[in-house]
Amino acid sequence: MNYFEESLKLHEKHKGKIEVVSKMKVETREDLSLAYTPGVAEPCRKIHENEENVYKYTSKGNIVAVVTDGTAVLGLGDIGPKAALPVMEGKSILFKEFADVDAFPICLDTKEVDEIVNAVKLIAPGLGGINLEDIGAPRCFEIEEKLKKILDIPVFHDDQHGTAIVVLAGLINALKIVDKKIEDINIVINGAGAAGTAISNLLLSAGAKNIIVCDRTGAIYKEREKMNEAKLILAQTTNLGSKSGSLGDVLVGADVFIGVSSADSVKPEMVRSMNRDAIILAMANPTPEIMPDLAKEAGARIIGTGRSDFPNQINNVLVFPGVFRGALDVRAKEINEEMKLAAAYAIAGYIDEKDLNEDNIIPSALDKGVAKVVANAIADAARKSGVARI
Amino acid sequence: MNYFEESLKLHEKHKGKIEVVSKMKVETREDLSLAYTPGVAEPCRKIHENEENVYKYTSKGNIVAVVTDGTAVLGLGDIGPKAALPVMEGKSILFKEFADVDAFPICLDTKEVDEIVNAVKLIAPGLGGINLEDIGAPRCFEIEEKLKKILDIPVFHDDQHGTAIVVLAGLINALKIVDKKIEDINIVINGAGAAGTAISNLLLSAGAKNIIVCDRTGAIYKEREKMNEAKLILAQTTNLGSKSGSLGDVLVGADVFIGVSSADSVKPEMVRSMNRDAIILAMANPTPEIMPDLAKEAGARIIGTGRSDFPNQINNVLVFPGVFRGALDVRAKEINEEMKLAAAYAIAGYIDEKDLNEDNIIPSALDKGVAKVVANAIADAARKSGVARI
Repeated sequence: MNYFEESLKLHEKHKGKIEVVSKMKVETREDLSLAYTPGVAEPCRKIHENEENVYKYTSKGNIVAVVTDGTAVLGLGDIGPKAALPVMEGKSILFKEFADVDAFPICLDTKEVDEIVNAVKLIAPGLGGINLEDIGAPRCFEIEEKLKKILDIPVFHDDQHGTAIVVLAGLINALKIVDKKIEDINIVINGAGAAGTAISNLLLSAGAKNIIVCDRTGAIYKEREKMNEAKLILAQTTNLGSKSGSLGDVLVGADVFIGVSSADSVKPEMVRSMNRDAIILAMANPTPEIMPDLAKEAGARIIGTGRSDFPNQINNVLVFPGVFRGALDVRAKEINEEMKLAAAYAIAGYIDEKDLNEDNIIPSALDKGVAKVVANAIADAARKSGVARI
Repeated sequence: MNYFEESLKLHEKHKGKIEVVSKMKVETREDLSLAYTPGVAEPCRKIHENEENVYKYTSKGNIVAVVTDGTAVLGLGDIGPKAALPVMEGKSILFKEFADVDAFPICLDTKEVDEIVNAVKLIAPGLGGINLEDIGAPRCFEIEEKLKKILDIPVFHDDQHGTAIVVLAGLINALKIVDKKIEDINIVINGAGAAGTAISNLLLSAGAKNIIVCDRTGAIYKEREKMNEAKLILAQTTNLGSKSGSLGDVLVGADVFIGVSSADSVKPEMVRSMNRDAIILAMANPTPEIMPDLAKEAGARIIGTGRSDFPNQINNVLVFPGVFRGALDVRAKEINEEMKLAAAYAIAGYIDEKDLNEDNIIPSALDKGVAKVVANAIADAARKSGVARI
């Protein structure tokens, strides 16, 4: 099947993917009087009396805006807010299909950090959460940070944290198979954008001690010159031995390679230079950093990619629906580190130890049961960390 | 039935009124590959190549944002964006139920004209149209005017133009019954806010020559002092004889009273002072300017109100669904005067001449056939006036 051609046809046939429907019928005069005037005045009054009632009488508590500026869409780059819309609609329907979250695309006609922050702040009263999507680094970091400060609803940049959570989930299970501990292993991450940075941070939270992040120039380390602020921060927490060199140089002796970079950036000889039982999560899309058969031939034991046609698909559809379901269920004020870790462990734990093997480290992206366990884990962790409001 | 109590229960039971659902199923790996990655990249690319393709491959062309700042909600006034949400959701489901338009509430956390304009501008790429709602006068005029200038999608403040269109529709039919011409009659409008101003403007477009608009101080006329800009403009086009005085003073000899003001502001003796075959459209909600039985006793021939429990309900649910349906169908760049007039004539014409009578000047608010004829009229008028893009 030619996915591109078929997808185009399907999008044209349906004219997009989302529709906004009513939960109440409007057939009789009575229906109209209850859903609209005069009856509707009463929920308005109750919310005016006490703002928290907005969760009781409106859809706010189940609505997430999928917000983008269209600057980092899939592998297509800065294609603008209109061209980003099919992805945002796609994300919206996955929210609904996997976790009964009502999601609506908001494609913003600006790339200015403060304009984006202000627009999201202004539309927030009707929203239960904000899923930031396909906003380029390093702007995405600043936007998320500012929004988290000013809003009392969860703000979650999926390209960062969704990816980090699913990577950690896969890694937890892979490490069980090779019988290594996260504290002891050498991890190399290729890609220092939104995903690479968030993965690095979450793995540190999970106990990793030795991470080196590479960008196109090679390893990131404190003394390297001409780095933006996001990379300077990365250099404070990773590569504490200040190794310099290319990706190939720092992969020597590594236990884990995590790729959120570009096609074919890892060569078989680089895999050969890694430790025994190497784990390769090569998530460049659609072509991974190294094809699974090549990596296996070169000695890697466990290989995951972003693709559905190979084993171990590392896909954040396993993450974002359940994360928001759980956060909305307890009206979490934010999605914090404890919640992200809990989500990763829940996804990993979804696979029984007896079913774990080299080709089964992560649940199927289509398994709609995952969102439920993630939601429960997120809700529990929100309560324990004091950010749940109910 | 206690509408307030029942409405509250219904809103709590459903937790609001809208949900966002998928037009495609996502069950298999193939579904996921077509609705989301990798397939979705292709519609993105096509839109990036040619922005107009956004109408072909996304939901944009059928989506209307129902935008408010919560400053003039029903008769409740400035209750804020969260308390306004039940009304915006109500409007959204009426859009869907009456005209298959996908509408989404946007409740803005600001009352600043330029912030509102900028927020709407920024979120516009994913939207097919903007329905402004319950924004107080005179700010609503400036907001609509500015948005119309900067956006290439229809912007329509329903409290102004929806109300004006349905009033004109009712008036057209009422005048047929009493056999008077709009050019010849004396019209008094009580209320100089969003609705009153727009009604005055549309009646002028329809040929009315003698309109006097009153606010709480009485008749508006050029020489009156301390008027805001909106009222100064009104005074240029209405009351050309510069009559001063109270509502009672200017109603003497009037043929038509149109009330978008407050309960009980018209007394029986004021109706008695009007011309023969007086027409009273008393739309204050929930209590009209004068109750129909009182107005009839005082000699009025035709009486309409905003209420569903009296004959002749003047309700803009007859207007906005069809207006946007028609505008979206032809991708109109705007909703202009010709289109508004066409909508009013279409609604009036929906009632056969043989069925016209004092208690039947306007179709039932529940008649879903009205939206279709309005949509056709709007689409035709858009084409004829050169604002249709397809």
